Amino acid sequence: MIDRLIERIEKVNNPSVAGLDPTYDMIPAKIKKEMLNNFGKTPKAAAEMFIAFNKGLIDSLYDIVPAVKTQIAMYEKYGFEGIRAYTETISYAKAKGLFVIGDIKRGDISSTAAAYAAHLEGISIEGEFFDLWQEDAVTLNPYLGFDGIEPFIKPCNELDKGIFILVKTSNKSGEQLQGLGLTGSCSGPMGSNTVCERAAEFVSEWGELAMGSRGYSKIGAVVGATNNSGMQRLRKMMPHTFFLVPGYGAQGGKGSDIKALFDKDGGGCIVNSSRGIIAAYKEVSGYSDENFGDAARAAALNMRDDIRKAL
Amino acid sequence: MIDRLIERIEKVNNPSVAGLDPTYDMIPAKIKKEMLNNFGKTPKAAAEMFIAFNKGLIDSLYDIVPAVKTQIAMYEKYGFEGIRAYTETISYAKAKGLFVIGDIKRGDISSTAAAYAAHLEGISIEGEFFDLWQEDAVTLNPYLGFDGIEPFIKPCNELDKGIFILVKTSNKSGEQLQGLGLTGSCSGPMGSNTVCERAAEFVSEWGELAMGSRGYSKIGAVVGATNNSGMQRLRKMMPHTFFLVPGYGAQGGKGSDIKALFDKDGGGCIVNSSRGIIAAYKEVSGYSDENFGDAARAAALNMRDDIRKAL
Repeated sequence: MIDRLIERIEKVNNPSVAGLDPTYDMIPAKIKKEMLNNFGKTPKAAAEMFIAFNKGLIDSLYDIVPAVKTQIAMYEKYGFEGIRAYTETISYAKAKGLFVIGDIKRGDISSTAAAYAAHLEGISIEGEFFDLWQEDAVTLNPYLGFDGIEPFIKPCNELDKGIFILVKTSNKSGEQLQGLGLTGSCSGPMGSNTVCERAAEFVSEWGELAMGSRGYSKIGAVVGATNNSGMQRLRKMMPHTFFLVPGYGAQGGKGSDIKALFDKDGGGCIVNSSRGIIAAYKEVSGYSDENFGDAARAAALNMRDDIRKAL
Repeated sequence: MIDRLIERIEKVNNPSVAGLDPTYDMIPAKIKKEMLNNFGKTPKAAAEMFIAFNKGLIDSLYDIVPAVKTQIAMYEKYGFEGIRAYTETISYAKAKGLFVIGDIKRGDISSTAAAYAAHLEGISIEGEFFDLWQEDAVTLNPYLGFDGIEPFIKPCNELDKGIFILVKTSNKSGEQLQGLGLTGSCSGPMGSNTVCERAAEFVSEWGELAMGSRGYSKIGAVVGATNNSGMQRLRKMMPHTFFLVPGYGAQGGKGSDIKALFDKDGGGCIVNSSRGIIAAYKEVSGYSDENFGDAARAAALNMRDDIRKAL
């Protein structure tokens, strides 16, 4: 998958990903009204709102961004109808040629992780195959170690899929565990000083099990913007690891803040913005809910140019 | 919720929880045949199999176990139909008076964690309230720190719900991050030496935000069996934290192995077995798929007696 992602980034010359993470408040009034009329005040109505909103966003974005990231929590909130909206959104994005990253952050022991791996490898019922989720890649949590990662490696290699493992998150309290300093004897092969640096070493090591052909592994990392030297260290500790970077835009980041996460050729990294793109119509003057797609497109182009300028 | 859980444990005199974590292979032939006939080789058929199997298990267990744990991965594998089976299973268990722990192990940044908190607090659509998930408690992952936990505390206090935060997992590779040794300056208030011990201190501290009236907090911990001194340390570091203990039975644990996780009165802890109970009909002689419920009941009673004897 990583070769496909790199190709798509090069094709649209844009290392950014639009986060399709809708909330009920973001739904344009016209869509909201239509779905409440059709389905009442129900989870099904909310699900149909998300599908309609996302389709409009995808139509406005598919030729300028290489990928979308779908944060499953926003859908799971609405129960099984929400999950249906999640999978229908992904189907539509895939049909438009987009690369889809399912932001699921799952992590469990091996037999359970094997069940979650259905996100990438599909399921079989009495010989009938179903690819119910269709993500190209998913995010995973490393707290349970390699057991929770291993079941995903086979679909990486055999089905051209990928994973991004949480290494350093962009939220304030991420430091509470990720930033803990290690005793010397627990430092890993690249001289890790903290939990997240040790996680970085593991991700780099595991990455060798699923290398792509463009210098990067199908096993990537989620790395949030931090201070410059911290980012440089993580880039150095994971030379063949592709980074998924949250925290651009609504969470405060700018292109210039994250330059250190890219490799020397301006590759190896894809940057996510969610609210800053999909809710732009509410926040940028000149737009309304009639042209939410245009607002999202303009915001995505601004983000692309901001990152390009920084590289 | 923690008071309710303790009362239920006392009522049935059994500190164990049955894990309703079905796999396709575990479904009794008769149920499988019926659902394939009715729904074809589809995810809907698998979902209906899980519902029927779980209802049979719940009917056989509800008066002898205080709680069930539903591992969402096993259901999520089957897409939105699987999630429907998950929520219908919980509805049925709740109607039978069981306490339900949703084993979801979610963890994300604050705005996303707030969406996941719908598991405990339900959702509202234009003023209409829906409790789509109905869990009494859910498991959470601490890798993102307090941000990922905080949105769940309000429903703990206001809606009598609970959470269990992963501290130490029972899988082999759990040690890779959880077992890392800390530099002295990163040790916490109870003298934590490792990442999981530091997590234990955080969980104990956060627990003060949602105390029950029986000496235990609504913020519990997932703690796997380890060596005796390791378990004693974790019990001591979290004196007011209720433990959810995986790893009994199929994962190898016995009642005597986990005694150190209980408090001096034999409380403060609930032990899970999944496969060992629900698939007992396949593994214990004298049973067949015609009486899978009887086999589960016998296995659950054996487990209860094994734990009682150890305490």
